[in-house]
Amino acid sequence: MSEPLLITSPANARLKAIAGLRRRRAREQERRTLVEGHDELVLALDAGVVPELLLLCPELAPAGAVEELAGRVADGPTQVVHATRAAFEKAAYRESPDGVLAVVGAVGSRPADLSLPPDALVLLCEGVEKPGNLGAMLRTADAAGVDAVVAADPVTDWGNPNTVRASKGTVFSVPVAADGTTVTLDWLDGLGIPLVAATPDTEMAHTEVDYRGPVAIAVGTEKTGLTDEVLRRAAHRVRIPMVGRVNSLNVATSAAIIVYEAVRQRG
Amino acid sequence: MSEPLLITSPANARLKAIAGLRRRRAREQERRTLVEGHDELVLALDAGVVPELLLLCPELAPAGAVEELAGRVADGPTQVVHATRAAFEKAAYRESPDGVLAVVGAVGSRPADLSLPPDALVLLCEGVEKPGNLGAMLRTADAAGVDAVVAADPVTDWGNPNTVRASKGTVFSVPVAADGTTVTLDWLDGLGIPLVAATPDTEMAHTEVDYRGPVAIAVGTEKTGLTDEVLRRAAHRVRIPMVGRVNSLNVATSAAIIVYEAVRQRG
Repeated sequence: MSEPLLITSPANARLKAIAGLRRRRAREQERRTLVEGHDELVLALDAGVVPELLLLCPELAPAGAVEELAGRVADGPTQVVHATRAAFEKAAYRESPDGVLAVVGAVGSRPADLSLPPDALVLLCEGVEKPGNLGAMLRTADAAGVDAVVAADPVTDWGNPNTVRASKGTVFSVPVAADGTTVTLDWLDGLGIPLVAATPDTEMAHTEVDYRGPVAIAVGTEKTGLTDEVLRRAAHRVRIPMVGRVNSLNVATSAAIIVYEAVRQRG
Repeated sequence: MSEPLLITSPANARLKAIAGLRRRRAREQERRTLVEGHDELVLALDAGVVPELLLLCPELAPAGAVEELAGRVADGPTQVVHATRAAFEKAAYRESPDGVLAVVGAVGSRPADLSLPPDALVLLCEGVEKPGNLGAMLRTADAAGVDAVVAADPVTDWGNPNTVRASKGTVFSVPVAADGTTVTLDWLDGLGIPLVAATPDTEMAHTEVDYRGPVAIAVGTEKTGLTDEVLRRAAHRVRIPMVGRVNSLNVATSAAIIVYEAVRQRG
């Protein structure tokens, strides 16, 4: 194995191209995104992701990490490049980078490209804007065995580095897709998957619905909830019973409560 | 009503004392904490909190907020002080302050000071360190009608401004307390409240336990879980079924799933 290329200049053009992937537009145009951090990358590799490029900073990386990660991609097409600390920090987006950064192919497909089992359990997130909430929902989906998470009219793309990070790498293990709301609802209709929509404006508790078949659970933004289109086309509108003063659970919490009610019934 | 005092100097001693309350030690010694933000303060006022001091910045506050908030505390002992933008920003802890900051009495008591109904539903958080997670658990507790949230051996105090903020003010509407783990477990024992402890190291699903009586649900840190002492003294150890690759739901999500299973059974 030849010595990897060492980048020493923060002005290096390749570093600039990597840093450019922090912008959604660049990610979407190039169909690539970033995975930063040792643990996140290990999860991505475990899920079968093959990075295009692996940028390592031996000065910053945990002991043994450079050899471990280079070894894991040695038999594939991944290009391994080293960088000095000053150069690496130009490309990294974390405040305290750990010397591991990879460029990987785009995350997520169109709903139509997903292949689902006959009794699919789908989580539909409409318009959710916070990467932390998307990441938390992916962790829940991973734990609960949700077959796919679809973002309808998303404000954040799945490849957002903060989503990747908040998901603890589950964005690579859970099938994810994104599309417009109408297209997504038509896709569910075509597959005969009924929709259960979470909204405070209904009398039916989320525990009163039968989830033991194919079903999609839809959640909207914390501020405005689901759009009228989703509510109108839902087979059931359900609410999580709330007695408190603040009529708003976190959207990721709401999703987890309903998804796990479905898991309980399907168990 | 006389004109409120206007602070114009960022070096003002009173502003420094307010900013000092960002430190836990100062909060605990002075038995005071901070509430920043219009919406958070409205929730605190709605919950019956009477601020000692209300610091308002007319240049930054939303339209009408200065009059609204000053009006709400006008009949009580709250001192209202105005500050110029430069001065206010010295005391504020948010990145984009909205011109509203209040000093309020300490949040939370000892468990022994709580008064609980006979069929109490209690949430016990042991060692949880992230204010965001504590805040999210308070929102869940508020929504689910949990009778008290007790922090055992907490790393973060209830008065942490980031907890107050993440809780959307529910830290003022849900009874909260904090104490050592042993004291807290003894208190539950004395009241005859059985403990259900969440841990991955058990075969019993969280849905297999009967929550229809007095019960305390315990969650630990994401990294190390509950201590042996809590696990040993629990009436039931339960796990949330997880099929995924990443064996870790967010702690606030785990708490919400179990609390809402209890709500379902008690409903």
